[in-house]
Formats: sequence, C-alpha cells, structure tokens
Amino acid sequence: MPDILLINGPNLGRLGQRKPEIYGSVTLAEIERCVQSSAAGVGLSVDCFQSDVEGEIIRYLNGRRDAQGLILNPGALMMSGWCLRDCLEDCAAIKIEVHISNIFAREQFRTQSVLAGVMNGMIAGLGARSYQLALTAIRDMLPEGRGLAG
Amino acid sequence: MPDILLINGPNLGRLGQRKPEIYGSVTLAEIERCVQSSAAGVGLSVDCFQSDVEGEIIRYLNGRRDAQGLILNPGALMMSGWCLRDCLEDCAAIKIEVHISNIFAREQFRTQSVLAGVMNGMIAGLGARSYQLALTAIRDMLPEGRGLAG
Amino acid sequence: MPDILLINGPNLGRLGQRKPEIYGSVTLAEIERCVQSSAAGVGLSVDCFQSDVEGEIIRYLNGRRDAQGLILNPGALMMSGWCLRDCLEDCAAIKIEVHISNIFAREQFRTQSVLAGVMNGMIAGLGARSYQLALTAIRDMLPEGRGLAG
Amino acid sequence: MPDILLINGPNLGRLGQRKPEIYGSVTLAEIERCVQSSAAGVGLSVDCFQSDVEGEIIRYLNGRRDAQGLILNPGALMMSGWCLRDCLEDCAAIKIEVHISNIFAREQFRTQSVLAGVMNGMIAGLGARSYQLALTAIRDMLPEGRGLAG
Amino acid sequence: MPDILLINGPNLGRLGQRKPEIYGSVTLAEIERCVQSSAAGVGLSVDCFQSDVEGEIIRYLNGRRDAQGLILNPGALMMSGWCLRDCLEDCAAIKIEVHISNIFAREQFRTQSVLAGVMNGMIAGLGARSYQLALTAIRDMLPEGRGLAG
Amino acid sequence: MPDILLINGPNLGRLGQRKPEIYGSVTLAEIERCVQSSAAGVGLSVDCFQSDVEGEIIRYLNGRRDAQGLILNPGALMMSGWCLRDCLEDCAAIKIEVHISNIFAREQFRTQSVLAGVMNGMIAGLGARSYQLALTAIRDMLPEGRGLAG
Amino acid sequence: MPDILLINGPNLGRLGQRKPEIYGSVTLAEIERCVQSSAAGVGLSVDCFQSDVEGEIIRYLNGRRDAQGLILNPGALMMSGWCLRDCLEDCAAIKIEVHISNIFAREQFRTQSVLAGVMNGMIAGLGARSYQLALTAIRDMLPEGRGLAG
Amino acid sequence: MPDILLINGPNLGRLGQRKPEIYGSVTLAEIERCVQSSAAGVGLSVDCFQSDVEGEIIRYLNGRRDAQGLILNPGALMMSGWCLRDCLEDCAAIKIEVHISNIFAREQFRTQSVLAGVMNGMIAGLGARSYQLALTAIRDMLPEGRGLAG
Amino acid sequence: MPDILLINGPNLGRLGQRKPEIYGSVTLAEIERCVQSSAAGVGLSVDCFQSDVEGEIIRYLNGRRDAQGLILNPGALMMSGWCLRDCLEDCAAIKIEVHISNIFAREQFRTQSVLAGVMNGMIAGLGARSYQLALTAIRDMLPEGRGLAG
Amino acid sequence: MPDILLINGPNLGRLGQRKPEIYGSVTLAEIERCVQSSAAGVGLSVDCFQSDVEGEIIRYLNGRRDAQGLILNPGALMMSGWCLRDCLEDCAAIKIEVHISNIFAREQFRTQSVLAGVMNGMIAGLGARSYQLALTAIRDMLPEGRGLAG
Amino acid sequence: MPDILLINGPNLGRLGQRKPEIYGSVTLAEIERCVQSSAAGVGLSVDCFQSDVEGEIIRYLNGRRDAQGLILNPGALMMSGWCLRDCLEDCAAIKIEVHISNIFAREQFRTQSVLAGVMNGMIAGLGARSYQLALTAIRDMLPEGRGLAG
Amino acid sequence: MPDILLINGPNLGRLGQRKPEIYGSVTLAEIERCVQSSAAGVGLSVDCFQSDVEGEIIRYLNGRRDAQGLILNPGALMMSGWCLRDCLEDCAAIKIEVHISNIFAREQFRTQSVLAGVMNGMIAGLGARSYQLALTAIRDMLPEGRGLAG
Repeated sequence: MPDILLINGPNLGRLGQRKPEIYGSVTLAEIERCVQSSAAGVGLSVDCFQSDVEGEIIRYLNGRRDAQGLILNPGALMMSGWCLRDCLEDCAAIKIEVHISNIFAREQFRTQSVLAGVMNGMIAGLGARSYQLALTAIRDMLPEGRGLAG
Repeated sequence: MPDILLINGPNLGRLGQRKPEIYGSVTLAEIERCVQSSAAGVGLSVDCFQSDVEGEIIRYLNGRRDAQGLILNPGALMMSGWCLRDCLEDCAAIKIEVHISNIFAREQFRTQSVLAGVMNGMIAGLGARSYQLALTAIRDMLPEGRGLAG
Repeated sequence: MPDILLINGPNLGRLGQRKPEIYGSVTLAEIERCVQSSAAGVGLSVDCFQSDVEGEIIRYLNGRRDAQGLILNPGALMMSGWCLRDCLEDCAAIKIEVHISNIFAREQFRTQSVLAGVMNGMIAGLGARSYQLALTAIRDMLPEGRGLAG
Repeated sequence: MPDILLINGPNLGRLGQRKPEIYGSVTLAEIERCVQSSAAGVGLSVDCFQSDVEGEIIRYLNGRRDAQGLILNPGALMMSGWCLRDCLEDCAAIKIEVHISNIFAREQFRTQSVLAGVMNGMIAGLGARSYQLALTAIRDMLPEGRGLAG
Repeated sequence: MPDILLINGPNLGRLGQRKPEIYGSVTLAEIERCVQSSAAGVGLSVDCFQSDVEGEIIRYLNGRRDAQGLILNPGALMMSGWCLRDCLEDCAAIKIEVHISNIFAREQFRTQSVLAGVMNGMIAGLGARSYQLALTAIRDMLPEGRGLAG
Repeated sequence: MPDILLINGPNLGRLGQRKPEIYGSVTLAEIERCVQSSAAGVGLSVDCFQSDVEGEIIRYLNGRRDAQGLILNPGALMMSGWCLRDCLEDCAAIKIEVHISNIFAREQFRTQSVLAGVMNGMIAGLGARSYQLALTAIRDMLPEGRGLAG
Repeated sequence: MPDILLINGPNLGRLGQRKPEIYGSVTLAEIERCVQSSAAGVGLSVDCFQSDVEGEIIRYLNGRRDAQGLILNPGALMMSGWCLRDCLEDCAAIKIEVHISNIFAREQFRTQSVLAGVMNGMIAGLGARSYQLALTAIRDMLPEGRGLAG
Repeated sequence: MPDILLINGPNLGRLGQRKPEIYGSVTLAEIERCVQSSAAGVGLSVDCFQSDVEGEIIRYLNGRRDAQGLILNPGALMMSGWCLRDCLEDCAAIKIEVHISNIFAREQFRTQSVLAGVMNGMIAGLGARSYQLALTAIRDMLPEGRGLAG
Repeated sequence: MPDILLINGPNLGRLGQRKPEIYGSVTLAEIERCVQSSAAGVGLSVDCFQSDVEGEIIRYLNGRRDAQGLILNPGALMMSGWCLRDCLEDCAAIKIEVHISNIFAREQFRTQSVLAGVMNGMIAGLGARSYQLALTAIRDMLPEGRGLAG
Repeated sequence: MPDILLINGPNLGRLGQRKPEIYGSVTLAEIERCVQSSAAGVGLSVDCFQSDVEGEIIRYLNGRRDAQGLILNPGALMMSGWCLRDCLEDCAAIKIEVHISNIFAREQFRTQSVLAGVMNGMIAGLGARSYQLALTAIRDMLPEGRGLAG
Repeated sequence: MPDILLINGPNLGRLGQRKPEIYGSVTLAEIERCVQSSAAGVGLSVDCFQSDVEGEIIRYLNGRRDAQGLILNPGALMMSGWCLRDCLEDCAAIKIEVHISNIFAREQFRTQSVLAGVMNGMIAGLGARSYQLALTAIRDMLPEGRGLAG
Repeated sequence: MPDILLINGPNLGRLGQRKPEIYGSVTLAEIERCVQSSAAGVGLSVDCFQSDVEGEIIRYLNGRRDAQGLILNPGALMMSGWCLRDCLEDCAAIKIEVHISNIFAREQFRTQSVLAGVMNGMIAGLGARSYQLALTAIRDMLPEGRGLAG
C-alpha cells in the first residue's frame, strides 16, 4: 500500500481558529481525517505531520524517503523555506504544494513560492478541498494510476 | 443545469502535437470530451471554447455572463493578458486557472500570472488531469456543492 | 465637417454593468450618443468604435487616417498595447487618452500607461464626463478652434 | 456661492516666459482671470494662489478647508511633494491635478506624480485650457452639478 | 534646566481634525501641553515648534544648538526631508523620531524614513503617547539620567 | 491580572556579552527582572521566553493566546521571520516590536522589518530601556489604561 | 520546392507611409514582390501574410506547419507577443527575426525582443534589405544549402 | 559689470561649524568675501544668497534673471530639489554646481544629483576652493572670456 | 576601391576550436579568406584585424578613419566595451555588429549589447555566414550600392 | 589542544545519497572522520555537529565560545540564515564557509551568501576536499600557525 | 619640483576631431602644452600620457608612484574601469577626475563614474579649461599650496 | 610533469606594497616562488604570469592550452572581465579563482564575480595562503590525484 505524506507547515495547527474568513473553519485534524479516509477508500495510506519548525519538517521528510506521494502546505515557508526547498528537490515522491487561500490575490510577498520550482505542481485557493484534490492527483499519477494524462 | 465554461487560450489547440515532453500527448478535443463526460455524470454542462485571439476570449466571456464556473487555461496570456484580466475580474463565476505544466519550474517569466489575482484559485503542473480536478473543485464550490470546506 | 473618432478598447462595451462603483452606471451607447450630440452642436461629426481586439482597433485607425481628432479610452490596453502605441504614434490627429476612473489611485500596474507618451494629453478620473471634456479640448485645439492657448 | 481654489506651484509664476515652446505664451495672470471670469458666469467664485514654497501651499490649503473644489498645477512638486500629498489626502474638496504639458511624453522622472493617487482626477497636456476644463469638471461634479455621470 | 525641543513637521498642526481614525482626536496643542507638563515634573523644559516648511524647521534647529534633546515627528518629511536629514546629522542632541501611526503598516512609501539613520531611535505606532514615551527616554538618556541601560 | 509576554528571539540570550558597544552590557536576565518588577508595580504579570528557534517562538505564542500584551525583540527574525509574521498577524494582543540598537543606522538589510507591518508599533534604538518603554505603552493601551490617546 | 513564410506584424501594412525617415519609402507590397522574385530565382516559394492581430498570425503559423523557413518582422509584438513566442518556439522551421530600423538605437523598451530567444537569429537595422538578407540566410541554412557554415 | 550669483542651499550657513572634518573650518561669510574680492579684481560683481528653504532660492533666482553666472552649492537639494531643477533649467546664466566634499565618496544617495543635468558643469570635492574655481570658469566662459576652449 | 574592415574581438582567434557546438568548426582564417574573396568579386577590399585587447581595436579603428564599412564581431566586448562604443560612435563608416550564435537565446547577460546602439544594424545567430551577409549589406548600403532600400 | 568545530547545516546529513552528481558519494560521517583524523595528526581536536534546524546550530555555537576555529557548510542557510549570521558575527573563532559544489555556477539565488560577509573566508566548489583545505587554512591561521602569510 | 601627471584615457587622442559639438576643437596636444606651460609658471612639472588600453594606464601609474598630483580624464573608463579604480585607490597623489562635457546631461549610463569614489574630486562640463582648473586646484592642495581651504 | 598556471591580474604586481592591511606584506614574487617550490615537491611545474591588461591574460591563456591546472587571482577583473570569462569557459584545465581578501566583506560591487560561474571553485579571504591551498586542491583533483573526493 503506497504511502502518502500529508505535511503542514508553521501555524497550520491553528486552522479553524486562524482568520476563518481566509482559511475557513475546518480544523487540521478534520482535514487529516478526511484525507486519510478518502485515501483508505482507494488503497492508499496517509501519514500526517505538522510542525512550526522548518528543520523538523526536513528531518521528518529525510526519514520518510519511502513515501511515494507528498501533499505539502508550507504556510509561510513558501517565502523563507530555502532549506526545505533543498530537501524537497532531493525527494523522489510525487510532490504537490497546496494553499488553502489564493496566494496570488493577497500581499505581493505571497505571490512567489520559493518551493514551487521543485514540486510537481500546485493547487491553490480552493479551500480545504485543495488537499483532497491533491490526493486525487497523486493517486492518479502513481505508477498504478491511470488518469487522463496517464 | 449549471453551465461551466472550459476555455483554452492561444496555442492550446495544438495540444498533443506541441512539445509532448512538456504538455503530454492528449489532444484538446480529448480533454474537452473527457471533461464534458465527467460533468454530465454529475449533472453539469460544459461549453468549450478555444481561441488564439485574446479579444475573442473576452467577447465569448462577455456573452456568457450566465455561466457559473470557468476553467481557464490562458496559455501565454498569463504573461500579457491584462485585458483578459479586467474581463475576468468582472465575471461572477467560480474561476480556476489551469496549467498543464508546472509553470514555476520553467522560465522566470512564466512564474507570475497576471491573471491569478482575479481568479478563485489555480491548479498547475498536474498534466491534463488539472482540468478534471478543476471541474471537481467547481462542482464542489457551487451553491449546491457540499465538500470538505462547503 | 471635421471628423472625430471616439474609440473604446476591451471590456468597455460593458460600461454600465461593469463595476458600477468604479465606472458608474452610464452605458457606452449613452456616452456615444451624448458625445455625438454635443459634437453636432458645434459642427463636428463623431464616429464611434469599440473592440475587444487590439488589432481591430489598429485596423480601424489605419482606415481612418482622415480623422482630425481621437478620443481614446484604451481600457487595459494602457498596460499591454505596444502595437496600438506604434499605430497611434503614426497618427496625425489630435489624440486624447481618457480614463473614467482615476487610474493613479488604483493598482500599481495601472499607474503607467504605455500609450500616454504618444498622445497629446490625458483626462482621467472624472467619470463619463471625461469623454465630454476631451471633445471640448479637441474642438478647441483644431485649427479653427480659438481657446485660451489657441 | 461655492468656492473653488486655483493653486499653482513652484515656477508657475513665470508662465508665459518659461519655455514657451512647452508651456505656451499665456501668463499665469491671464489664466487666473480667464478661469475666474468663466466661473463667475456659472455662479462660482475662484480664489487664486501661487507659491514657490511647498509649505506655503500647505498652509494656504489648511486655511481654506471651506473650499469645495481645487484646481492644482503642482509643477515639479509632482515629483517631491510628499508633504503636499498628505495635505491633499486630508482635504474634502473635489481635487483635479492639472499639467499644461503632456508629462508622459517628457523625461522619465515626470511620468509618475506622487500626488495623483489622492486627487479625483488629472488633466494633462492640453495647454492652458487644461485649467478651464478642470473648472468645467468641478462645476459638474459639485452636488448641484448635473452632467453625464451626475 | 536642560532644554528639550518638541518639533512637528508639515500637516501636524491639524492633529485632532486630520484622519482621526489614524491619528486620533488629540490636538497638537494638547500634546504639547501634556509633554511640557510631564517634563516640568522632572525638571526639564520643553520648547515646541511646528512648521509646514522644511526650511523653517532647519532654521529653528540651527538656532537651538543648545538643546539637549529632540522629539521630532517629521510627518511626510520622512519621505522627502533630505535637507532636514543633513541638519539633524549635524545636531548633537539626543534625537528621537516619533510617528503616531504605525508607518510600517500603511503605504509602501511610508515604510522607510530618510531621517531614521541619523536619529538615536524611533517610536512609532503608539498614538499620541509616543511623544510621552520619547520624553521619558530622553530624560533617561541625558547625562544625569540613570535608567536600565544608563 | 493581565498577562504580558516578553519574548526575545535568536542570539538575544547572549545580551551583555554580545557586541556591548552596540547592545550594551545589561544581560537578558536583568532586563527580564527589571520589566517584571516594573510590571508588578502596576498590577501586570510578565512571562518571559527566549529561543533561538523561530518555530519554538511560534509554538509558545500559539500556546499563550490568552496574553494581552506582547513585547517582542525578534533579533534577526526581523529579516527572515515570515512564519513568525503569520503567527503574530493572528494574535489579538497589543504587540510592540523592540530593538535595542537603531536598526535604521546599521546595515541596509536591517532597515526593513518583515514583522513591523503586523505589530501595533515599534520602539528602536533606545537601548535596554526600549523594553521598559514598551511595557509603559502596553499598560497604557490596555482597556483599563488611560493615557493621552486613551 | 520548399516553402518560406514572410510574415509581417501589426502596423507593417503601412510601410512606405509610416515614419519614412525611420522605415523608408518602400511599401510592404514591394518588399513582398521583391523577396518572392528573388526566391523564385533560387527555387524557393514565398508565401506572404500580414496581420495587425497577434492571434491571427498564430493561427496562420499553426496552419502552415509544413513551411521550412520563416522571415518574421513582428513590429511591436517584439514587446508584447508572448503568445506568439510560444507558437514560434513550437515551430520547426528556420526562423529569422527582422527589423527594418536599428531597434537598439531607439527607445529603451525596444532594445529587448521577447521573441528573439526562440528564433534562429536576428537581422536588424539594415532597412528593407533585411528581408532579402534573411532569405539568403534561410536558403543557405536549408538542408540543401551549402554556405560557409554549411 | 556682469553679475554673478553665489547661492548656497540648506545648512550651508553653518559652514565652519558643521562637520569640519568633511566641510573644513572656513565659514560661509569668509567664502563669500573671498569670492567677491576675487571677482572684483577681474571686473565682476558677485551677489550672495543663502537659504534653508528651496522655494526662497527659486524666488531669488526668478528675481535675478539678469545674472550672467551662477555658482550654486545646493547642499542636500541635490537629492530632493526637483522644483529648483525646473527653475535652473529655465535660467540662461552659466551655471556651475559646487560641492565642498567629494559627494561620490560618501553615502550612496549622495552620488546622483537631480540638478546636475541642467547645469553647465560641476566642481566637487576640492574644498572651499571649489567656489573660487567656479568663479574662474565662469569668468572664462562669459562672452568676453577667452580661455583654452573659448 | 572602398575599404571594408573586418574586425574580430577577444577569443575569436580561436574560432573552429572554441565550443564548436555553438560557434561551428570554421576557423577565423577561413572566414576572413571567404569574406575577402567575395568582396574582391564585387570590387571591394577587406582588411582583417583581430585582437584580444579592447584598446588595440580602438587604436586600429582610429588609424583607419578612411574605411567605408565595418563588420565587427565584438565577442564579449558586447558586455564590457564602453570605450569601444565611444570609438564606434565617432566612426563614419557603415557599421554592422555580427554574432555567430544567437546571443538572445543564451545567458541573460548576453542579451544586451552596449555597442548596438551606435551601430547601423546587427546580424546575429546565423553562424559564420553572418559575416558574409554583413558584407552584402554594406556593399548595398555604400553610396554606389543600389538595393531594395537604396 | 585548540578546538575546531565542524558544523554542517540542513540536509547535509544526507551527503552521499543526495544528488551525487553534484555533491559526490562521500558521506558526512566519512568527511567528519577524515577531518578529525587529519586534525589529530597536527595536534588539533575537531568536534562535529550537524542539524537541520538553524536555531540548534546557533545554540550549539553559543555553547562553544571556546572554539578557535570553525568550518561551516551552511547548506541553504546561505540564503536564509540571517539569525545564524548574527551569531557568527559575534563569534571570535577563525571562520571558514565551505561549499562542496561551485555555488556560483548554479541557480542565481545560490550566488550570494548572506553569511559570507561575517566569515574569514570561503572555499567553494572543490568537493569534499573543501573541508580538508579549510582545516589546513585554520591550522595555519591559528596563533601558533606559521604559513606564507603568517 | 613636484611632478603632476596628466593622463587621458581611451579615444581622447582624437580630441579636436571627435564630436567637436560636444568636445570642442582643441586637440590633446594643445591641452597638454597649455597645462604644461601653466604649470611651469608656478614651478610644477607635468608629464603627459594617453592610452587607449586600460592596463597601460595602470602600468604607467604604477611606475610613477612618485607623482604628487594626477589630472585624469578617463573617457569611457568611467563606466568600465574597475581595474583602474583599484590602481587609483592605491595611489597617494592628489587625484582629480576631469570631463570635458557635462556627463550628467548626457546618456543615463554616463551619469555614474566607477572611479569618482576614489578620487579627491571631479571637475566636469567646463570644456578643455577643466584641465586647467584641475591644475590650479592641485597646486593649491599641495603641501606648499595655500588657498582658501589650505 | 603536469603544468599548472599561476596567473595574477591587474595591480597584483604591487602585492606587498598595496594596502598591506588588506592584502598583507608578502610580495607576488614571494608567492610565486613559494607555490613553485611546493609544486616541485609533488612533481608539478608552475608557470607564473601577471598582467595589468585583460587581453594579455587572454592571449597567454590561449597559448597555454596544454596546462592542466589554473590558479587565477583576477583582481578587479572579477567585476569587468567578461572577455576573460569567455576565455576561461573555453579552457579545459582545473580552474580555481583565488582572492587574498574576503571579497564578501568589502564593497557591495566586490561580492559578485563575473568569472566564478565558469571556474571549478573559489578560495577567498585566506590571505596569501589561498594560492597554496589552490595548488593543493588542483594536485588532488588531477587524474592522478587521490584525495577525499577523488
């Protein structure tokens, strides 16, 4: 059963409480349960991790070199996570960057992710369902997947 | 039955022949059929339009003010489509920008879309399945949708 | 009877419906009628043209080399209309750029017009009456005009 | 009878003598008389002020909080008048920035006014008649005005 | 009795009336009285000066070379006051730049003061009490002061 | 008794030893005692925290959502602390950024804080007494405070 | 007989009338006849196309995938033709960008072509004969050509 | 007897006291006397003026249109004196910008004068003797002068 | 017999050996012979010069003021040859800049030539035949030439 | 026996596995053993530390103020390690920044290290032997060293 | 008898012939004679040198470490002469940069000299007499000189 | 016996005399002897070359294509040596850029070398011993070398 990692960066532990008008009212725990449950339905296992420390995410990722997919919401590490970028560049899994809000419609400094260049793709602005869509995409892009562009 | 528009910008009529190592081998006709078929399955109708002329896309959009969703792959209009931007800003549908390739991993000038700030969100880098995912998201975001962040 | 052209660029066909809090509730047809009627009163004829396609405006202008005055609201072509700029630079009429809203008080990218350097002048931010003022100015600047700086 | 202010910034006292090929041969006194006379014809009173000192213009403006309209040719304060900008931002009158020459067709540093963002609009490049047009616009925008966009 | 100068730049004479949602409702006279009264309590004398003219502030400062402390709210001279900067750099008093509003949370052009590099420090965003705090700091930094870092 | 947090970022644990010509000779422990003692005198409690790890400060802050005031010296996180910025933006306390040295008179890269835009204000350059002044300001800005701008 | 395309962009239909001091007095029709005649002499066929609409040039090019050579004078599309760039990048013919005037000796914005990076080369500043030289080069670079670098 | 103006801008009244390690110990009065005395020796009259207010210098200059030469040390108006620039551009005298210190070897912001482009030349970094040299140059450049390049 | 100069800048003496995948396998001697032979056929004489020292090229050019045409491949002097630029600007011959490779498709720093603004035109990217084409153009542009734009 | 620290930043624990074509196949453990062994041979002791967390490196460094030399490979902290920079600036040891790959020949963002300005020097691009060379340099620069520049 | 060097950079050997409307009609030989003759009159000896090769100027300067003054017209080396800058920085003579034309009133790239920061001062725009003025200044600044600021 | 080149650029002939506080007191001759002697000890021959002329270094390098290693201190050519860059890029030897001082801790313009991208690596800031370390590295990187990363 291929392993997918669901990793959330700094401040995302507060989803549901933090600026609900931007980030919605769903909590991180609910998102994780929801993604895990969908994954289970299609024979995938999802391991979840959240940290406010960039280096801990790097450590976690380096310890999970077996994973085949990665759903990553980096939070503000999209602006400062150069070390995380090096780690992701060195990671063979299918990698999708996820943002709950439309980062391109907010402050100027949020319109350029230093990570996006080493990911497979990005899903942004579609709310908590962005995670679900990323799971769908990864499942489809796995060797055994067979989607439209398979 | 809510109407969804599937609009492709300049050069996307050549999908399948154009740089297959970047854009894949699926043709635009196949993508359109595939999205229409998925939509039909969930009670949505999809109208497709492609043009190499920015102004024609603006005209088409201004004539389809009734649409409730918009899946837009602007091609290179992401760099020069300031008029299209004004048109999109004035459009009430749920709007998702789609890119087949990961625009953030290519030339520097492709890493900033002048349109993204007036869309609801973006899906990039996930191949032709990006269109499919956009449809899923729009269906979910329609008033009658009920997804994770519904 | 000297001919004046009244040209409106992309998306301006939707005046009256588009963002009324910024652009007001007057329609383009009303503006055109109003300018034509004022012009008739002072012995000027006004021909109106609107297009969402930059190249069509260029074609129209190249076919109307006889015109003596030009009132142009370029819409977002003020950001991307380099081809229109070349066309205008080559046009002998008295040329006034018009903007309904105060472009200098909006997004940063709207504060510099690529066209303004080849026009005679600009009237911006004064609502639909900007067109009327441009007509007054052109009438005054025509050889037969005799205003303060005539 | 609503009061309109006609304020001219540094060096504009030399109009008529200064670079006539750019600024024309009309003197400031003539412009002031002309605007006052037109205003009187439509029941408006115009008070004129010119100073080469930014701070004196600020003082004058702060003492004339009762004015309902402001025609301002800032001269080179369009480049350096940040204090004037703060003063104008805090002023409730209808405010129009006027430039005799087409500032967009001259040196690069003249193409961006630091004041324009806090004005109602701008009229530039139409010679001394720009003042007259500004008066027309203000009269029309006053509560009792009734123009096209009234 | 050491002399402290309390200097306010352009437009600050209108405190209390100007944009109360940003600058509060206290007038400059009240602030001056309040600072003078606090100063008197600790054996300091405060002389107050306000001008809308940069050069008048320079003149005043050059005539008060005896002062031992300076509380300066430059208003918009923080953007354009290069001459004031030269004057301050040449001034031996303890100098504190004060801003009522949080300049770092407003327009981009307000986030860099050309004066700050020649001051001893800055207090910004704490309302009218910023002046009071500056007085406290100066008293503490005077030779006879004896605070935490004395 | 309202809680105030006193948080110091990376390298500030070495205060007193680190570059005394810039940062003075007072230690962090002395500053903390001093602020706590002053706070106690006016019925406030101050909890102190220092960390060299950005993510640990975020964690601490997320666990102290009850605090009513925050005195933060971010050290060099003023240049790189984008994740901390997101955390602070989401924090309801009165927040004051403190710098011992005058950051505006040092290297160019120290003249812009990425945090300042989400704080209430800043006190910089006044030595260790900056902390004390911040406490005074917060006490005054608390609902029960009643200062000049109360 | 290998096919060469001779494509001229916006405003080039007015060659001969437009700014003769820069662009010379030869008309586009004359240039086209001249190039076609030279081509015929060496067994090449030249098809000519001119449009003021970027998207029409893209359509034409996409319909002529059989062509073996392309002589393109993009006019001002060298500044804004990002969609044309994508089309050209996907085109297998030998492609030469041609400019009648020396674009490097004119306005700053004309010194960088967004198209040049996907062409084989550029000939600029040599008047109408630039087209002729481009034809010579293409003939020489065709598989059957045998020039100096053949 | 041709008139030469010797004008000194903001803060230069403090020459001799201000930063003697940079500006030397000669006072402005001494410089003025010295230049006047040299001028008298060669049949020239020098009128001296100093002001800390940019607008006063403009007024003075506008009142002395008869002058044939101008020696100007603008002080920090070299950074902010856009209004003075317009005034100088409109002044027919021989104009030399003078700086006591080598502005090119100091802070970055002092290395570009906004005035220099409308002067005849600049003498910088040669101490108080820069004024004397400027006088020599002007005498030589007057119609009656006859120097090396006369 | 009019004289044409064929000048090659630094490192071009190694043509044929240097990066043949970019610059081809033809040597400079072969190019020179080839151009001289073509020139002889049309009654022109070509003098060849190559140097790795910018100043030697300047000296050579200053000694050949009689030349009527100049074919110049500046190599990397297109980035740093400001002195050469001054020399070329002062040279009356018909001047064409030549580049073997398409400089616009390589590193960013190669896309702007500091020389191009003072040349008559540029031929780039067409291999060693670029020299031949430049000869053709110069012959045609000489007074006795009679080409399409003659 | 003087202590040398060998510190490796984020992701360097994966040396040997990470991008071997860039970073080689030697592991960090091998490098550490190798450097320690060389050091022992010349009477130096080397303590090794690696962390993926910037703050942990700062803590470690602050606890090892006794060290006399520092060999630091910061990994991607060369882009974001502003806090580490402050820590290093405050550290009296001889400090050499080491990079295995030639950072100047890779992505643009890797060509400027924010740390390099506070180090003694840099060795980059020489593979794993860069560490060894740094040790040689430090030994030589220690008070007891006696090298060429001793 | 103190030695003064008069050094002219690339292309200045052509003075008198080169762009006389900018550089005048005096030749370099005449300037040199004139400066030498003036110098002789005040007991100074002037050695002259001109080269089109930056490195030759460096060599000459390194061989004349005994010189006490340097008059340098670098020509276009003011844009590219970084090596010359290092040489001048290391030279103990009194050094004055001279430009015949007003470099600040010409192309943008001529308004910043890379050399000026290591010179004592600059004289620009005063024609060939700039050299003469530089000599006067140096004579005055020599230990035995006694001018206004001596 | 493999040949190593030791090349020093402009002004480095003055090592020992030039700014000893930055560059030390060792002369270039001493450095060359020292490197040659070390090389001899390990069976390598070192040829030394110094020039103040960029083009002479290029010529020397083009004549020594047999060399297997290159130790290059470019001096200020690191800022302007674009021609040298092209030459080095085309050179197959192992190439190490050496700087005696820590270029990253000096003026801003010294922090980016235009050469570094085509070298194998860089050693900077370690004094004259940097040359020695470069020799060690090259010996180790030669085919017959056998170091840690061999």
